[in-house]
Amino acid sequence: MRTTVGIIGAGPAGLLLARLLHNAGIDSVVLESRDRSYVEHRQRAGILEQGTVDVLRAAGAGERMDREGLRHDGIELRFARQRHRVDFPGLTGGRSVTVYAQTEVCKDLIALQLKEGGPLLFEAEALAVEDAESERPRVRFRHEGREDVLECDHVVGCDGFWGVARTAFPESLARVFERTYPYAWLGVLADVAPSHDELVYARHDRGFALLSMRSPSVSRLYLQVPADTDAEDWTDEAVWDELERRFETADDWRLERGPITQKSVTPMRSYVHEPMRHGRLFLAGDAAHIVPPTGAKGLNLAVGDVVTFARALVHERETGSPELLDAYSATCLRRVWQAERFSYDMTSMLHPGPGDSPFDARLQLARLGRIASSRAAETDLAEAYTGFPWE
Amino acid sequence: MRTTVGIIGAGPAGLLLARLLHNAGIDSVVLESRDRSYVEHRQRAGILEQGTVDVLRAAGAGERMDREGLRHDGIELRFARQRHRVDFPGLTGGRSVTVYAQTEVCKDLIALQLKEGGPLLFEAEALAVEDAESERPRVRFRHEGREDVLECDHVVGCDGFWGVARTAFPESLARVFERTYPYAWLGVLADVAPSHDELVYARHDRGFALLSMRSPSVSRLYLQVPADTDAEDWTDEAVWDELERRFETADDWRLERGPITQKSVTPMRSYVHEPMRHGRLFLAGDAAHIVPPTGAKGLNLAVGDVVTFARALVHERETGSPELLDAYSATCLRRVWQAERFSYDMTSMLHPGPGDSPFDARLQLARLGRIASSRAAETDLAEAYTGFPWE
Repeated sequence: MRTTVGIIGAGPAGLLLARLLHNAGIDSVVLESRDRSYVEHRQRAGILEQGTVDVLRAAGAGERMDREGLRHDGIELRFARQRHRVDFPGLTGGRSVTVYAQTEVCKDLIALQLKEGGPLLFEAEALAVEDAESERPRVRFRHEGREDVLECDHVVGCDGFWGVARTAFPESLARVFERTYPYAWLGVLADVAPSHDELVYARHDRGFALLSMRSPSVSRLYLQVPADTDAEDWTDEAVWDELERRFETADDWRLERGPITQKSVTPMRSYVHEPMRHGRLFLAGDAAHIVPPTGAKGLNLAVGDVVTFARALVHERETGSPELLDAYSATCLRRVWQAERFSYDMTSMLHPGPGDSPFDARLQLARLGRIASSRAAETDLAEAYTGFPWE
Repeated sequence: MRTTVGIIGAGPAGLLLARLLHNAGIDSVVLESRDRSYVEHRQRAGILEQGTVDVLRAAGAGERMDREGLRHDGIELRFARQRHRVDFPGLTGGRSVTVYAQTEVCKDLIALQLKEGGPLLFEAEALAVEDAESERPRVRFRHEGREDVLECDHVVGCDGFWGVARTAFPESLARVFERTYPYAWLGVLADVAPSHDELVYARHDRGFALLSMRSPSVSRLYLQVPADTDAEDWTDEAVWDELERRFETADDWRLERGPITQKSVTPMRSYVHEPMRHGRLFLAGDAAHIVPPTGAKGLNLAVGDVVTFARALVHERETGSPELLDAYSATCLRRVWQAERFSYDMTSMLHPGPGDSPFDARLQLARLGRIASSRAAETDLAEAYTGFPWE
């Protein structure tokens, strides 16, 4: 097989990239190791930055998102039984975020790709990226029991943290930056209307809790738990009891309970692989960087990467200059490190750690107090939450 | 002896408090364990917030400060060979800071006190505060070889981190919040004009460095060193060589050298004692809280405490209500914790720690990059640096 851009992975990054290239008249082939149903149902992020919404819409993939997505103009910070709302449009000159699950973004993009786009092969497992430094990089893959080769002008690894693309970087070139956290998130989906119409980020001495939603009738809720927690150790009742404790307020706000339909543990990790490009191989999304979910940045960073790549390739086609492709890694990493910083800060502000001292606890409350009392500090958060600009 | 307010310690907090009370027509006696020359020459902070300048001026202690102090409208952040200036008045609606050494503030206040104020006893060592919970607390002290007792309506402990006042709090009441750092500052005074007209805070992979000044002809310079460093281990040449490396820039900026006249090591510590009041005993300044020097907050916090106390006492005299005295600890602690947070953040943003990972180093650069590129983040810093409001 032969194509212009070989894309490994049909998560939101790979699928959106195929769509952006298609719209620019550039061929691509997407290889995805899992089957379609798996890709369409894996629970992931659900907060789209303003820029992500704009890109999906411009790419012609925004129809259902515009109909079903929930526009959110703020979040609530809850701490020491106080409630503080951060008003995004008021602080950022009109920016907001949209709650629309990653699974839905993937479904929309898959439907579009199968209808109008180039080849999208499910159960096609990439085995290796070869000759990345040459003019003609190749992806070896296995599909329907046979090994095959995809010859490309460029390969983009959108194959996530466990993917094969990153392993094609020579060890002498690659540098890894990493941080783990001594806690994880226990996430549940519940068939009950969200108890608040915006996300609630709660810092409590017992641990962090997050109230989010998938739709007007489905709540998504998270609890900070020790890193080695088994979701099955938590009964539904224990989950609700603990959520209730951590969301406590001084007023009469109440958490509504409902049937829990899914329960899982999300690990917390910060990870960056530098550089994000080696020859004609480019990394995008989780293949290059992981953020803890507190800042809702993972999906949006992936979108930023593929937008940057598509623009750079179009620029080369139009001008003959590879300057933007050459700058790909540096351009993405500036945004990536700001998102890493923000995700780390949101995480450490809201999660009491097992080894934290009383000083650390007071520091968390002082940070939250600062955001609640300084327009500058609050704006800093609102700008970062609604999204860093794409260069 | 008998007085209205017994003040332990003739540092800037105790001396300013005596002056504020004198101006309000309230008697006080100041007990200082050291002699006058020691107090007038111990090197400490040198950055006065806008609010501190205003208070000193209003107290009639601003004449020489206004003549000799250097008004600074910004600081420079230096990292990755870049230089970024933070413009205080432009970001905060006109606020600035003044460089005027703590030793000079003390000299001015001592001269005023001896000329116009109540008793100020040097070499008068406070031994214990007694009966803090009664209507008539007492300070036992030793002066000129004799033990004596100072009977008061109120006692204010301005006697620093090692002072005796704090020990009068019952253990069951007191709560301590603390953090130590694995590094210290090696500070030098040098007879050379400062190489930059504003303070330069430099983050370098080799460690933090700070360029400050005492006057147009005297530089004050600091280097991050390991916590157990002996100042005598550093030759003058080694100090200058290391400063030169850490202040490196991409342009032709140069560090001017000159004779080093003093060399000492400043430890780094965060410490808060809660509450700051027990009965009729009040803690102010370093007796209640320590910050690492990076945010230049120590002296200014002490000023905030005594302003709060003086206002509260005047309020009680005028209205008969002890409400502000009762609120003293909570009022001060709100400001104290914001200063602790800011000092911690400035410190951790600028000091590479011995156990830091490559991820931590990138995080520091991302923080500095954020301040250099976001007006909101820069304003947050400028507001905190020029001073938190006094309630």
